[in-house]
Amino acid sequence: MRMVDLIAKKRDGGALTKEEINFFINAYTNGDIPDYQVSSLMMAIFFQDMTDDERADLTMAMVKSGDEIDLSSIEGIKVDKHSTGGVGDTTTLVLAPLVAALDVPVAKMSGRGLGHTGGTIDKLEAVEGFHVEITEQEFAGIVNRDKVAVIGQSGNLTPADKKLYALRDVTATVNSIPLIASSIMSKKIAAGADAIVLDVKTGDGAFMKSEADAVALAKAMVSIGNNVGRNTMAIISSMAEPLGRAIGNALEVREAIETLRGEGPSDLTALCLELGAQMTVLGGKAETLEEAKGKLKEVIDNGKALEKFKVFLSNQGGDASVVDDVSKLPQAEYQIEVKAGTSGYIEEIAAEELGVASAMLGAGRQTKEDVIDLAVGLMLEKKVGDRVDAGETLAVIHSNREEVEEVKQKILDNYIIGGSEVNIELIKQVITE
Amino acid sequence: MRMVDLIAKKRDGGALTKEEINFFINAYTNGDIPDYQVSSLMMAIFFQDMTDDERADLTMAMVKSGDEIDLSSIEGIKVDKHSTGGVGDTTTLVLAPLVAALDVPVAKMSGRGLGHTGGTIDKLEAVEGFHVEITEQEFAGIVNRDKVAVIGQSGNLTPADKKLYALRDVTATVNSIPLIASSIMSKKIAAGADAIVLDVKTGDGAFMKSEADAVALAKAMVSIGNNVGRNTMAIISSMAEPLGRAIGNALEVREAIETLRGEGPSDLTALCLELGAQMTVLGGKAETLEEAKGKLKEVIDNGKALEKFKVFLSNQGGDASVVDDVSKLPQAEYQIEVKAGTSGYIEEIAAEELGVASAMLGAGRQTKEDVIDLAVGLMLEKKVGDRVDAGETLAVIHSNREEVEEVKQKILDNYIIGGSEVNIELIKQVITE
Repeated sequence: MRMVDLIAKKRDGGALTKEEINFFINAYTNGDIPDYQVSSLMMAIFFQDMTDDERADLTMAMVKSGDEIDLSSIEGIKVDKHSTGGVGDTTTLVLAPLVAALDVPVAKMSGRGLGHTGGTIDKLEAVEGFHVEITEQEFAGIVNRDKVAVIGQSGNLTPADKKLYALRDVTATVNSIPLIASSIMSKKIAAGADAIVLDVKTGDGAFMKSEADAVALAKAMVSIGNNVGRNTMAIISSMAEPLGRAIGNALEVREAIETLRGEGPSDLTALCLELGAQMTVLGGKAETLEEAKGKLKEVIDNGKALEKFKVFLSNQGGDASVVDDVSKLPQAEYQIEVKAGTSGYIEEIAAEELGVASAMLGAGRQTKEDVIDLAVGLMLEKKVGDRVDAGETLAVIHSNREEVEEVKQKILDNYIIGGSEVNIELIKQVITE
Repeated sequence: MRMVDLIAKKRDGGALTKEEINFFINAYTNGDIPDYQVSSLMMAIFFQDMTDDERADLTMAMVKSGDEIDLSSIEGIKVDKHSTGGVGDTTTLVLAPLVAALDVPVAKMSGRGLGHTGGTIDKLEAVEGFHVEITEQEFAGIVNRDKVAVIGQSGNLTPADKKLYALRDVTATVNSIPLIASSIMSKKIAAGADAIVLDVKTGDGAFMKSEADAVALAKAMVSIGNNVGRNTMAIISSMAEPLGRAIGNALEVREAIETLRGEGPSDLTALCLELGAQMTVLGGKAETLEEAKGKLKEVIDNGKALEKFKVFLSNQGGDASVVDDVSKLPQAEYQIEVKAGTSGYIEEIAAEELGVASAMLGAGRQTKEDVIDLAVGLMLEKKVGDRVDAGETLAVIHSNREEVEEVKQKILDNYIIGGSEVNIELIKQVITE
């Protein structure tokens, strides 16, 4: 088999066989095929797309390129959730205890990663004592007993995907539905998920700008999942503004607690109910999305969800009393209000840019070595659709330095105030097949 | 300027600016841009094409990437000719003295190259004593006096094209009209041509299988030439069978002599008159193609073309007496007839495969180190459209070994005999702009 023939076949619109895809992924992972042939193939795929079979085969070839996490010692259907890039996305913090309260096992492997705020582990470390340094045996034991635990990423997962992604990043071949879909799905599958729920963001602030593209990506991932024996569902949700009100690590933990108590922002609550319902159905704990949503509301209302969050935190060394007293979370020294310069309605809040503003305060990391300031971030007082008068507070900056003029300006620049009372449709589509 | 942005621009259908093309070609030539970014760009160009401006800019960027031959000391308009891959293509041997006889200066730089038969220099070396080891000064002096000379390739011509071509070859990006056109034109321009005549072959045996593709390539090259100030014309000619009757080095020299005497095969003669007419017009020695053709026929009829060939050979040390006694050319030891197994009409002769048959006898080289046997090759007795009876001779193998069963079989396999009296239209189109 010659790589140049595979490239030509794809270039001319042909479908690669499973054997051809395995050959290429194995040889590339082993360093037997040069980058310049692979980048050429990636560009051909950009233009010629891949069939459902090719997408499934590519995903599984990447899964098999490295270690696969074995979660078989954990009872039940392990459901994982993935959001395709968001800002102030607190859903994981809410969903893990929420669905665990319905006995859906959440055996989450998570990373720190780079971004505007920290990863899920960073956020949870805002709770004093919380840690993810537990053995795989402890991890399985906790999930079997209490249905929820988080462990740090370990093992050599999907090395083919890492290598391919780094190459795509510098060859303008990132933005291809089959390549994005197989990349995401390979990581989830290698991490041991039996079933997968996807939250695909769309809008100016998201990776997928148009709803049509987001739907295509979601359908591609759902198809891959179902083709390789992992039940998969997806939500298309709007990124026309940041989700919830908090952007920052401790601030998001506080918001998650409020949401689990039934007092969270309406958009975050609504999205968590949708995603949670899918997780519950896939986890076999409800027949329909409606039934699942009813059960989730019940565990919020009766306090079981919040109770589960406490158990989750204390199981991993965390001080669960923060749940009842959020002032125990790290607090920033300064709270600086950003006031509107004009009156009108909030028409848009550029989520990506507010994420950058938060990162400027120290909430995220740009390189692996950066230390995150868990206390800092933004709280949005006004959201899209809200009426605001000149001089009213738009957002509050939580900072450990007094001088935040630049951050303030960025926030003002990215709060679009105008004459229209915009109504964001948060959940655009629910994709179950 | 970042290469990844250039790739994305082209991927999305944008046109690269002259500055962007110069940046990429210079940086790639210098090794400052990795192959994997360039192969991705090449594939994007395969799908998105290039505008006329981009093609001209790419061509000139490649010309400027290395040495340019300065032919300014030679008087007149130096016209070069290029054929896009053919088998048994004796046109250069005929055309050089033919148009020189009309005072069109032919200052030809030629190579040995790889292929089914040798390059032009190899063929001419079948004439005892002929050599191309002359200084550039001698070269210019000869052309100024007698209008025709051939010199070996020297200098570092179009290194960007060499590097790009090697990459395209292994990344399935060879077959792109703008890339083929700019590659060919950059070499001709760097070699100093003021004007260029192109012979683009089409048909099963040619690089461009369909006439539409061949026309697109020809138009692309003519447009590039005219856009960068080199008058350019093209012929689209058929490769439904080998051109002329000879395939092999000395055999083609003999055929060229016959053609210059007016006794050559009709297809070779016709194509040489077409190409020669274009060279004559571009060289400023006739107003119209018709007038030029008339003048060319005249120098064939009155012996001036043949006389010019003698002068050409002896100027470079060759034994010009071969022109009057072709038996002085290298002769193969064995002449083996290949006879038809069935009766009918010759419907097709697979040119490429007959080239391979000739190479099997030793007429060409596969690696630079191979030694060519100048005497061997094939003479086709029957051409497409001819009637043949079972047992009649199709072709004669000229070989220096007696055992040629495999070659014989290849010839038989590639002479298609059937019931239709096919008539090949040799010259399909004449493209002047």
